[in-house]
Amino acid sequence: MTKFNDLIEFIRGEFNRELNKFPIPEKPGYLYDPIRYTLKGAGKRIRPILVHLSGRAFQGDPDPMMKIALAVELLHNFTLIHDDIMDKDDMRRGKPAVHYQWDDATAILAGDGIFTMSQLIMSSISMQTDQLLQFFNQASLELCEGQALDKEFENNLSITVDEYLEMIEKKTGALLGACAALPAILCGKSESTVEAMDKFGRNLGKGFQIHDDLLEIFGDPDQMGKSLGSDISEGKQTLMVIMARNRYKKEWKALSHKKDEERLEDYRNFFAETGIEAETRGAAREYFENADQQLGILPPERHIELNNFITMVKNRSS
Amino acid sequence: MTKFNDLIEFIRGEFNRELNKFPIPEKPGYLYDPIRYTLKGAGKRIRPILVHLSGRAFQGDPDPMMKIALAVELLHNFTLIHDDIMDKDDMRRGKPAVHYQWDDATAILAGDGIFTMSQLIMSSISMQTDQLLQFFNQASLELCEGQALDKEFENNLSITVDEYLEMIEKKTGALLGACAALPAILCGKSESTVEAMDKFGRNLGKGFQIHDDLLEIFGDPDQMGKSLGSDISEGKQTLMVIMARNRYKKEWKALSHKKDEERLEDYRNFFAETGIEAETRGAAREYFENADQQLGILPPERHIELNNFITMVKNRSS
Repeated sequence: MTKFNDLIEFIRGEFNRELNKFPIPEKPGYLYDPIRYTLKGAGKRIRPILVHLSGRAFQGDPDPMMKIALAVELLHNFTLIHDDIMDKDDMRRGKPAVHYQWDDATAILAGDGIFTMSQLIMSSISMQTDQLLQFFNQASLELCEGQALDKEFENNLSITVDEYLEMIEKKTGALLGACAALPAILCGKSESTVEAMDKFGRNLGKGFQIHDDLLEIFGDPDQMGKSLGSDISEGKQTLMVIMARNRYKKEWKALSHKKDEERLEDYRNFFAETGIEAETRGAAREYFENADQQLGILPPERHIELNNFITMVKNRSS
Repeated sequence: MTKFNDLIEFIRGEFNRELNKFPIPEKPGYLYDPIRYTLKGAGKRIRPILVHLSGRAFQGDPDPMMKIALAVELLHNFTLIHDDIMDKDDMRRGKPAVHYQWDDATAILAGDGIFTMSQLIMSSISMQTDQLLQFFNQASLELCEGQALDKEFENNLSITVDEYLEMIEKKTGALLGACAALPAILCGKSESTVEAMDKFGRNLGKGFQIHDDLLEIFGDPDQMGKSLGSDISEGKQTLMVIMARNRYKKEWKALSHKKDEERLEDYRNFFAETGIEAETRGAAREYFENADQQLGILPPERHIELNNFITMVKNRSS
């Protein structure tokens, strides 16, 4: 994997260079200062890296791929800014969120501006423009639907596993699907190839999100750079919480009433003993395997990097 | 003008029919209920009517024109929803604003959803897609910039007339410019024609906004359907207020300290006696004339309806 890791570092570096070069006007500062602040933030760049790997699989021209990569990262940042206002999350990537650093009005407008900039980048690709933008905006609308479901599910204690999976498919899967599928559209590939790449990304996204939920409980606090278990304390729905609540109502209720500092160890024991941890790890593994299978539409030598990417996502510890 | 008025009514009716037919999913209700609520609201439909009149001037296919008309109206509605949150305006078109009927989070997402839907409509036009979407989103970004300037100008008592004019050009002019220019782009017209149509719309927009400011003071409260002068009491910057403050600092300060109910008559007298009313009416007239002149790029028989549209906007009393 060393050679693959080097490739990832190279793509991330090239992407960050391009993002830093991206021209953002000085004025009006009310609009562009928070946009500059957001785009200077760190970020794993999972989405732009996936765009480039998918582009390499189709041997596409890297220049328009970089435009797609920029557009999806901007779209992602737009949703983070607006979601943070809606969810009253004050920190993002180790920095104060835009609405916390400035105020809600500024953050609303900054999000709108970044989203518009992502559309401008996408429409600067003059090949397959209508198809690319249809797919890009269908994914954007799904992101909105996913966030809507997330808000509907808040404080709803009767959410089922299927409802949760629908939510994360829209909130995380749809955009990873677009990252994988847009390069195929740009390269004029068949509908069935585009669809397979979309499914690959969606499965990867669901695996990614469930893995994230697992890290939130079973991860290493030092590597995660934060205290764990807080999502649960704040009432966030995760696959493990939903299983626990639906299957062990009484025990789960008792557990959730404990004090914060005692909880993490208890959560870990509870999820391990009930088999919920194993089942959740199994679910993530299954999504990663499904993602892998979709890649069968490509000749073997063309999808090795994407296989490696799945492995990387599957093994990440932060 | 009777025949022209009939045409406008016909276009408005056709547009409203099309808007009502526009499919909006049922679920998730958190996203789509407020969108349905917004799109059911009344509205003068100035922007879609302008799109269709411009389309007729170029003898373009009415079907894609309807798509452009829908997209610009949705874009306009998106900005209204978000602006109302930022400006804490609780009423819109005689109904509670979305953030007031629901809450800020719902309204942020509803705006995002409508904006995305407008992009989906635009990208469903398969001719000149990249050029259309570049222009559409450049205008969208200008709307964001205009709103940013508006927020920067709040409580700033040293705004100049030029700064105000820049703000309204972005906030109102850019989208009317797009309404007039997009049909020209769709019909494959030359760059100079597209530019002239954009300028026509921008001038019309600035005249429209200044006329609006005049109606807010000199209009008929019954026809306006609201009490007048409240914008000034709330500290809104208008051309007349800026002129008054910059030229008659003391007198203006004294006037603004009076009680609400006494003010309207005093404002009227003040603006009339100082000549600010006449100068403002002159400025609006000049923008309408500039708009008219830009239409010279079209053969005379093709721009009569757009001339009539200017007259209609110029003479509106509510």
